[in-house]
Amino acid sequence: MNELTISLDSHSKIPLYEQIYGFIREEIRKREILPGERLPSSRTLSSYLSVSRSTVDLAYEQLVSEGYVESIPCRGYFVCEIEELYQLGETQEERKMKTGEDALKYRYQFAVSGITPDGFPHNAWKKISREVLLDASDDLFRLGDPRGERGLREAIAAYLHHARGVNCRPDQIIVGAGNDYLLMLLSVVLGRGADSRHVVAMENPTYMSAYRCFVNLGFDMRSISMDDSGMQVGELEESGADLAYVMPSHQFPMGMVMPMKRRMQLLSWAAKEEKRYLIEDDYDSEFRYKGRPIPALQGYDTKGKVIYLGTFSRAIAPSIRISYMVLPERLWPLFEQRGINFSATVSKTDQKIIEIFMREGYFERHLNRMRAIYKGKHDLMMKCLKGMSKICTVSGENAGVHVLLHFVNGLTEEEAILRARKAGIRVYGLGQYYTEELERQDSGAGADAGRKQEAVLLGYATMTEQQILEAMEILKKVWTCC
Amino acid sequence: MNELTISLDSHSKIPLYEQIYGFIREEIRKREILPGERLPSSRTLSSYLSVSRSTVDLAYEQLVSEGYVESIPCRGYFVCEIEELYQLGETQEERKMKTGEDALKYRYQFAVSGITPDGFPHNAWKKISREVLLDASDDLFRLGDPRGERGLREAIAAYLHHARGVNCRPDQIIVGAGNDYLLMLLSVVLGRGADSRHVVAMENPTYMSAYRCFVNLGFDMRSISMDDSGMQVGELEESGADLAYVMPSHQFPMGMVMPMKRRMQLLSWAAKEEKRYLIEDDYDSEFRYKGRPIPALQGYDTKGKVIYLGTFSRAIAPSIRISYMVLPERLWPLFEQRGINFSATVSKTDQKIIEIFMREGYFERHLNRMRAIYKGKHDLMMKCLKGMSKICTVSGENAGVHVLLHFVNGLTEEEAILRARKAGIRVYGLGQYYTEELERQDSGAGADAGRKQEAVLLGYATMTEQQILEAMEILKKVWTCC
Repeated sequence: MNELTISLDSHSKIPLYEQIYGFIREEIRKREILPGERLPSSRTLSSYLSVSRSTVDLAYEQLVSEGYVESIPCRGYFVCEIEELYQLGETQEERKMKTGEDALKYRYQFAVSGITPDGFPHNAWKKISREVLLDASDDLFRLGDPRGERGLREAIAAYLHHARGVNCRPDQIIVGAGNDYLLMLLSVVLGRGADSRHVVAMENPTYMSAYRCFVNLGFDMRSISMDDSGMQVGELEESGADLAYVMPSHQFPMGMVMPMKRRMQLLSWAAKEEKRYLIEDDYDSEFRYKGRPIPALQGYDTKGKVIYLGTFSRAIAPSIRISYMVLPERLWPLFEQRGINFSATVSKTDQKIIEIFMREGYFERHLNRMRAIYKGKHDLMMKCLKGMSKICTVSGENAGVHVLLHFVNGLTEEEAILRARKAGIRVYGLGQYYTEELERQDSGAGADAGRKQEAVLLGYATMTEQQILEAMEILKKVWTCC
Repeated sequence: MNELTISLDSHSKIPLYEQIYGFIREEIRKREILPGERLPSSRTLSSYLSVSRSTVDLAYEQLVSEGYVESIPCRGYFVCEIEELYQLGETQEERKMKTGEDALKYRYQFAVSGITPDGFPHNAWKKISREVLLDASDDLFRLGDPRGERGLREAIAAYLHHARGVNCRPDQIIVGAGNDYLLMLLSVVLGRGADSRHVVAMENPTYMSAYRCFVNLGFDMRSISMDDSGMQVGELEESGADLAYVMPSHQFPMGMVMPMKRRMQLLSWAAKEEKRYLIEDDYDSEFRYKGRPIPALQGYDTKGKVIYLGTFSRAIAPSIRISYMVLPERLWPLFEQRGINFSATVSKTDQKIIEIFMREGYFERHLNRMRAIYKGKHDLMMKCLKGMSKICTVSGENAGVHVLLHFVNGLTEEEAILRARKAGIRVYGLGQYYTEELERQDSGAGADAGRKQEAVLLGYATMTEQQILEAMEILKKVWTCC
């Protein structure tokens, strides 16, 4: 750390402590400062930089709270081991699509899944884990309630009511190891076989991971076209589907927020027949940048027609494997008959940790921090894209952590991806999220690709602001001219 | 602790430190010594009892290692908070069957599931958890391999080969959140629907929890009679089943170990048709009291016909929700097609903890300790039962943690359960494990109950030796005479 030379800009709008924090963070990321190394004491650094000690302390605290640096009492601040900081969580889909070689080629990846590198609340999580383990009574090691522990379900019900306008009792909540598992359980609860064949409608394009799960679970699928508001209700009505899977808070991949009118139309559709249900995937609902938050569809449902799915994957980390499903009361008898026999899939320890994380306000504070981080990245993206108005228009920018670019300079989706790739930047084509694409792959038959839009998805959750700046600069160059 | 009066028997075969340990443990359990209380220093207690300090130290160390007592440096030994020590993990089945009021009525419960109260390796688990959390890199918080992490699968493969004679590569292993989840996943992999309807054969009586899961998963079920060796292969052949679920290491509830000849017959049955598979549930295989351990059925399978299921529920704790399935290579293409889309259900943190627990020898040492504890309880049970030879005969005593009693004095199963209940002791009737029982409940129709044996199950895992002694004494009295 002898050669540490920070140049501070006292006229910048960025506070001094943030400049110091940002500089050291980048040094750690670039491995200019190595894991295990000690940072200069705040006294030394403050006198060296001619700033107050509290400014340096603030910067150090920020680094500690984000897990870059560890404070060891009486010894100082040490850089933590942070492996593979740049390669972030991707879906299986993405993993399968790319070869190991590919991964190495990309200097920047606009992944549409994963969380920000500084996103996991390391310190709070470790602290609560230690407490839970220390307090661990024998009860913690017994098999628990198949729906999840009461305490956690209460905390989730309170959060959902307060933050998402969801109306439910803790008894309606089922905690499970990830959304895919909950869809599996739901398929058991709804039943199947010749006598009870269910047909699931999904928007097109859509979240292919859920689509594939439904196919594997033996559901018949219907792909419904979208307009600017989302799933087209007329087409849904004609499709014969009895289940409709929607993402009103933030449709994936199109990124739109479903307006109230369409929500009401969907609820009416569901109310028309006894066996109809809406499956509301509220993924990404935590992050909005424009307008007032819209409550979940479930909150407007007076007839018990919405099955609500939520997850901690995006809000905390994909690895923690805790999701939840809110079943309407009318489905309860079926769950009691078919679902209750399947033991809980999340360990009591993990349930306890997340319960405390929610109850003691860590979750809300963490979400606020994430929102601020993503808002910063979002605004930066939008600023960069402003300078690219001759190249593309933007959509899906009001929520979530990705945007869609529609080229106006004649560039095709394929060509745009190829050019980015040659420049070492990974972007994602909209094409892969159309279900025809999958059907064509599976059956070898051609399908109507006429309705398909062309666009490129840029996810910014896993990128640093510096990376966004650099990558967008390059993209602007390679996407200019045709 | 002033009134602590331990009377040691220096002529006993039980070592002095064990007498001290046992006495204090019982005092803690009876809440004579309360959580938070400090034990006398080993110097004080050793001079008071006129034993060496190392004897007392040994007793205290035992109490610490089993989580009853915590050692705080420079301050002494303190009693830990141990809640509800007597109400141990039960299956959902048992939970649903009993009312809250019932639970209070029983002073002793011979539960057939759950683990010994001193069974959870608190200290090792806490230690490893702390290490894992301390070392946690960002990678630990990303979504992992849907089959489970490579490191854990390697550790499981090594253990299974060494301890159970299972032949598999780590790639064949799928880690999942409990056996019920793995059965769910298996049903997806095998496929269903009109074109691929599967028929599952189970022994009768059998493990009803798995039976109910299969029913809920939409499988057709066939109940096959048993002889002394287990599932009758002739009847299996005639049943038209393509899947046979067996527990060769320790059939539940009958408790028998399947002899080699029957294992070979089952393997031949499976080899006869392409679509036939055996599902081997190796639950409880860790605990055997007689004869040499018999390797798993999977180890004799040369044709890729065995789907092997194992769990850490009994070996560690029901709450940790980690099981594993070994798929034969021939099922791999189906898994790749239908199963790989479902994300992992166990968090990476938990996977890492159990990996280290296995790799560093904790698991093996823990199993040895459990074996010793269960062997002690088993031998005590057998000793008590020896004095009851006029009342009943015993079966299923060579493995697992429960025995079956067959009354020879004219007592019926129902009457025996009732008399035990009146005396505050919960025992379990064999009747509830016959599938006809379930079918009768469900359909209201009568079924052939003629082949049903009458017997009572006594599980001793969750009982202390003292409780076993007391309860068996009472049972002998209430079951004598007719």
